[in-house]
Amino acid sequence: MDVSLVDRGTAPEQPVRGRPRSEAVERAIIEGTMKLLEEGVPLAEISIERIARTAGVGKATIYRRWSGKEALFVDVLRAAEPDDPELPGTSMRDDLVVLLDTLRRRGLANRSSAILHNVHAQMKSSPKIWAAYHSSVIAPRRRMGLEVLRRGEENGELRPGLDLELVNDIFVGPMLVRTVLRPDADLTDEDLAERIVDTLLDGLRPVS
Amino acid sequence: MDVSLVDRGTAPEQPVRGRPRSEAVERAIIEGTMKLLEEGVPLAEISIERIARTAGVGKATIYRRWSGKEALFVDVLRAAEPDDPELPGTSMRDDLVVLLDTLRRRGLANRSSAILHNVHAQMKSSPKIWAAYHSSVIAPRRRMGLEVLRRGEENGELRPGLDLELVNDIFVGPMLVRTVLRPDADLTDEDLAERIVDTLLDGLRPVS
Repeated sequence: MDVSLVDRGTAPEQPVRGRPRSEAVERAIIEGTMKLLEEGVPLAEISIERIARTAGVGKATIYRRWSGKEALFVDVLRAAEPDDPELPGTSMRDDLVVLLDTLRRRGLANRSSAILHNVHAQMKSSPKIWAAYHSSVIAPRRRMGLEVLRRGEENGELRPGLDLELVNDIFVGPMLVRTVLRPDADLTDEDLAERIVDTLLDGLRPVS
Repeated sequence: MDVSLVDRGTAPEQPVRGRPRSEAVERAIIEGTMKLLEEGVPLAEISIERIARTAGVGKATIYRRWSGKEALFVDVLRAAEPDDPELPGTSMRDDLVVLLDTLRRRGLANRSSAILHNVHAQMKSSPKIWAAYHSSVIAPRRRMGLEVLRRGEENGELRPGLDLELVNDIFVGPMLVRTVLRPDADLTDEDLAERIVDTLLDGLRPVS
């Protein structure tokens, strides 16, 4: 929940300001939005004006940093979710384990945080917020997975000639089923990512 | 969309009535509900009374057949979705291909039908309807998948000692990612189920 790490991936046309004062203002705005969400205010009722009032800043201060509500909500989500992983880069297998374990930890965070849970659920019925989340979180994560697979194909860890888009869905699928589609699934198993990756690499047929 | 095949899985305490007259009444009730959904009436505003009026039957006629709105909506969904598959039973591999292809065809149906798409989306925000759908559609499908895997383990098609719950998520995961989580994914490829199953059985490592 390191708010200072939040970048403005959804509004790339704006220059990134790293000055401490600017960071404090951003933190106040993001935390003000979180406060409203914690109080149970529905997304649709949270206006930039209300956020500005809660954070004690002017509306213009928010608009200088975010293109609108959608981009701001996405950064609030990213501040509340575990950070993007550093890939170890030692092998495709190790990178995939880290990628999948990040999905698992996000799923856990989502369940234990009423804010995250709520925002994720409401987001799906707001096409604009969903599009902003997709382009700044889901699409880059997918690209990262595909790059890891491409390296694995190159260095011989992956069978050649596979459809990498499909292989990506094969790796993330079982984890996403448990984090997104089955709210009752156990996510506390710290070996889950490793088990999925190794099972998939080994294949499911008996060793002959 | 064969309404006569709809059973009352959600109200098992009631005797199944196979008489033609009863079937015609059920069809009228289900089609009446579909008509309301086609007209864009939100689920929350569709009462048993309104369905009764649209279908030209009494409320008691509906309550004799369904325990409530939730069970009725689930049967409406099931009537609009492709039927549950007949498993060929020739091998675990063939059964899994059929199971996954049914998911693909349901995903396609869901996209091309505004009713299905709408009901699925709204259902998630109604815990009661979701629970009814889960217990009468998702849970039995999951049990069917696990049985297929158990047979595969017994007859030696599947590596012994695997966590079958996880293996089930491994098989359905990539298909569900494409049908449920990625609305832009291409589902028209009729070989997709086969490609997923065979890739998983073979494993992703290079053949040594």
